[in-house]
Amino acid sequence: MTPEEFRQAGYAVVDWIADYWATVAERPVTSQGRPDAVAAGLPTDPPAEGEPVESVLADLDKLVAPGLTHWQHPGFFGYFPANTSGPSVLGDMVSAGLGVQGMLWATGPACTELETVMLDWLAQALDLPARFRSTGPGGGVIQDSASSATLVATLVALHRAGGGRWREAGVDRRYRVYASTEAHSSVEKAARIAGLGADGVRLIEVDPVTRAMSPAALRAAIEADRAAGVVPALVVATVGTTSTTAIDPLPQIGPICAEHRVFLHVDAAYAGAAAICPELRFGHAGLEYADSYCFDPHKWLLTGFDCDAFWVADAGELVQALTVLPEYLRNAATESGAVIDYRDWQVPLGRRFRALKLWFVLRWYGVDGLREHIRRGVALAARFADRVRADDRFELMAPHPYSLVCFRLRGPDGPNERLLAAVNGTGRVYLTHTRVAGRHTLRLAVGAPQTTEAHVDEAWELISQAAALAD
Amino acid sequence: MTPEEFRQAGYAVVDWIADYWATVAERPVTSQGRPDAVAAGLPTDPPAEGEPVESVLADLDKLVAPGLTHWQHPGFFGYFPANTSGPSVLGDMVSAGLGVQGMLWATGPACTELETVMLDWLAQALDLPARFRSTGPGGGVIQDSASSATLVATLVALHRAGGGRWREAGVDRRYRVYASTEAHSSVEKAARIAGLGADGVRLIEVDPVTRAMSPAALRAAIEADRAAGVVPALVVATVGTTSTTAIDPLPQIGPICAEHRVFLHVDAAYAGAAAICPELRFGHAGLEYADSYCFDPHKWLLTGFDCDAFWVADAGELVQALTVLPEYLRNAATESGAVIDYRDWQVPLGRRFRALKLWFVLRWYGVDGLREHIRRGVALAARFADRVRADDRFELMAPHPYSLVCFRLRGPDGPNERLLAAVNGTGRVYLTHTRVAGRHTLRLAVGAPQTTEAHVDEAWELISQAAALAD
Ligand SMILES: Cc1ncc(COP(=O)(O)O)c(C=O)c1O
Ligand SMILES: Cc1ncc(COP(=O)(O)O)c(C=O)c1O
Repeated sequence: MTPEEFRQAGYAVVDWIADYWATVAERPVTSQGRPDAVAAGLPTDPPAEGEPVESVLADLDKLVAPGLTHWQHPGFFGYFPANTSGPSVLGDMVSAGLGVQGMLWATGPACTELETVMLDWLAQALDLPARFRSTGPGGGVIQDSASSATLVATLVALHRAGGGRWREAGVDRRYRVYASTEAHSSVEKAARIAGLGADGVRLIEVDPVTRAMSPAALRAAIEADRAAGVVPALVVATVGTTSTTAIDPLPQIGPICAEHRVFLHVDAAYAGAAAICPELRFGHAGLEYADSYCFDPHKWLLTGFDCDAFWVADAGELVQALTVLPEYLRNAATESGAVIDYRDWQVPLGRRFRALKLWFVLRWYGVDGLREHIRRGVALAARFADRVRADDRFELMAPHPYSLVCFRLRGPDGPNERLLAAVNGTGRVYLTHTRVAGRHTLRLAVGAPQTTEAHVDEAWELISQAAALAD
Repeated sequence: MTPEEFRQAGYAVVDWIADYWATVAERPVTSQGRPDAVAAGLPTDPPAEGEPVESVLADLDKLVAPGLTHWQHPGFFGYFPANTSGPSVLGDMVSAGLGVQGMLWATGPACTELETVMLDWLAQALDLPARFRSTGPGGGVIQDSASSATLVATLVALHRAGGGRWREAGVDRRYRVYASTEAHSSVEKAARIAGLGADGVRLIEVDPVTRAMSPAALRAAIEADRAAGVVPALVVATVGTTSTTAIDPLPQIGPICAEHRVFLHVDAAYAGAAAICPELRFGHAGLEYADSYCFDPHKWLLTGFDCDAFWVADAGELVQALTVLPEYLRNAATESGAVIDYRDWQVPLGRRFRALKLWFVLRWYGVDGLREHIRRGVALAARFADRVRADDRFELMAPHPYSLVCFRLRGPDGPNERLLAAVNGTGRVYLTHTRVAGRHTLRLAVGAPQTTEAHVDEAWELISQAAALAD
């Protein structure tokens, strides 16, 4: 495809995206198709000869779009949002067009340096502790996801716990990882990948009301393990748990980790973005104890998936744990020690130029614009929670410090399950569920940029009507 | 940013990319800037207020572009290529615009199903063994990179070796991974991540001429280990090694793995793409022995990074090893067992809609167009190798079955190092180096879509001239 052919086709795709965003609200949020509906519409063999872009775009409309869950739909309230925005897409377009592979500083100096600066910008915007800035021994990097950030933190923690033997000798199965019973499944997955097995994870009980990790229970578990000859290697504390956005108390957890020299990783995948607003920084109290921290701009900061921002207080330790340097990657810049090679900050080798989308987002919205976005989400969630609170048929299942509301019909689970199915079946909104204290609970997470009061009110109307029939 | 604002800015970015491709050949291939040159040009703080897209694009030209290594430059002959192409960028644009997160079938049915079909299309185009098609117990998935594919293969192999205990109990440090001394560094990195440590990897010697793994040495190592009570878990065979594109002999390695029930992963990161041409399938002889296989469309198949195509013969085993199912991810489709949830086929949880770029690429070029691209690369490499062969000052250091030529000035390393620095210093071409049998060796890898005979001839001229001065 020549540059001129790309230019014409590129305009058509830009139009397609703009039109999609302009009409997404009219589509059913989730696909109404059955499994295999999309696959069945596609030829079983690849074409022998090339086809024009128009044919592909026609099939995009005919085959693919009807088979999507529309994450950018204003009625998408499921999971946590995976926001994107115009400037993020523009940044990603530039990244795709450049086709830079920034595994080393030398393979993309600007790719590396813009990333370092963007992570410093974010650290500043969120007012993160100084130890995470690149001006000292710490620094930030983009991971694909919070799951991968947790895995990297796990590996560094094992490296530290092994006193340098881990790299060569492997994992000692006496190492333990601690997280609350409400922590994300990626903590267990990381422990399994790292060779500790699910048995290597101790799930610490939570406060029955706040659903935050109990520091006393953490201390007890660590002390019991140490007494039994087991080695506490890592605590993962969550700021904004997946089920209910509970906030593990870092001011109490941090000193326990310090006392027992356990690596502390803080996972603020969703809620971290809120800290761009000074009045929403409460979850980060005690963050200065953390050895590493991450949040996902791809969740609630208008930056398309994938973009997890991950910081460490000691980049040297991270690089020691993960570095490889075969001959074919050697180069003068690396040897000078004056540059960052981000391949050593992550699991895979290669990397895209993801800092571009952060740059476009931060510059288009400015910190003020991003604050507005976050505050709007929090206000919409509060508005919805007020409706729930005012209706005796329902109960709120957890506080809603951010933009997630957890609620249910009082009474048994069955009606709640039917309510969820009925509401999602309208195609107007999409909610997901969780269990809180063993009970089937609905989650409404606000975050799509197009969501307004009208959409939240419509969600409530649909829920309220369906509740009447769900018994 | 409204859809209309995006439309206007989107056109501007499309123009920017088209202009970049039209002018990339005139730029120096690598940045002439020193470390920190880009960072120093950026403000230390994020902007408080939003800025127009034009300002960002102006800075892209002024600050970022001069600090890049231009992977799409026709004179880029370093590493292995990381091709992109117009249709790939279009597919990525659509993916970014949709902002779908396809961790589950339910969160993006079309995202999942198009991926399954694209991997079947690729399997067909490369004539991979039937066991990798999704119509049986096997199937394919997109990983970010070959490194991650190797990690996933390592985890499945450990799961199998542990007879189901690995998930819960963790890794047994008696497990061993085997790969040739020429295998990619990601094999060792995966073993370390998986908790085996570098000590868990046995590097098997290669044939001194072909640089392919010696099956006899592999057998001897496996048998010695078994006799010593060590458990062989995984063999990683490489089709197209990073240094020289050597081809480990699967027809001999496969039966050894089968006999000892060792998981066989085949890493064809670069060279796999060549199998789209029937006459270039020689590296895949014996592939029917493999438990898993991967190649990178993002290297040599005109699909932008990241896109690794990874297949397994037994998807059930893979899912068993990697699955997590917390309450908040439960859904009716998953429970029906009728769908694929790709989160269980990879390390992270979330996933982008990367199948779109494969779809755009396969349809725009057709299989015939992709064959043409591959054949052109092979022919250009052969043309360059002929120049080397015809010049007594130089020696070829390895066969060049694909599009990589390994060569050096006869004699000591010093002149070769100076030659490389001088040639790269012209800014017209970019080559990297490796060591072959201990000797500093230059690598010229052809693959950028804009590279023509003229560029390869220019590279040879520059090398030939610099050689005269390098002594
Ligand atoms: C607290 C928490 N951690 C981690 C994750 C995983 O995020 P990612 O998809 O970026 O891996 C989530 C996702 O919802 C989360 O809520
Ligand atoms: C044989 C081989 N395997 C794996 C890799 C790693 O590829 P990726 O960047 O996709 O992880 C490479 C990269 O050059 C390679 O040559």
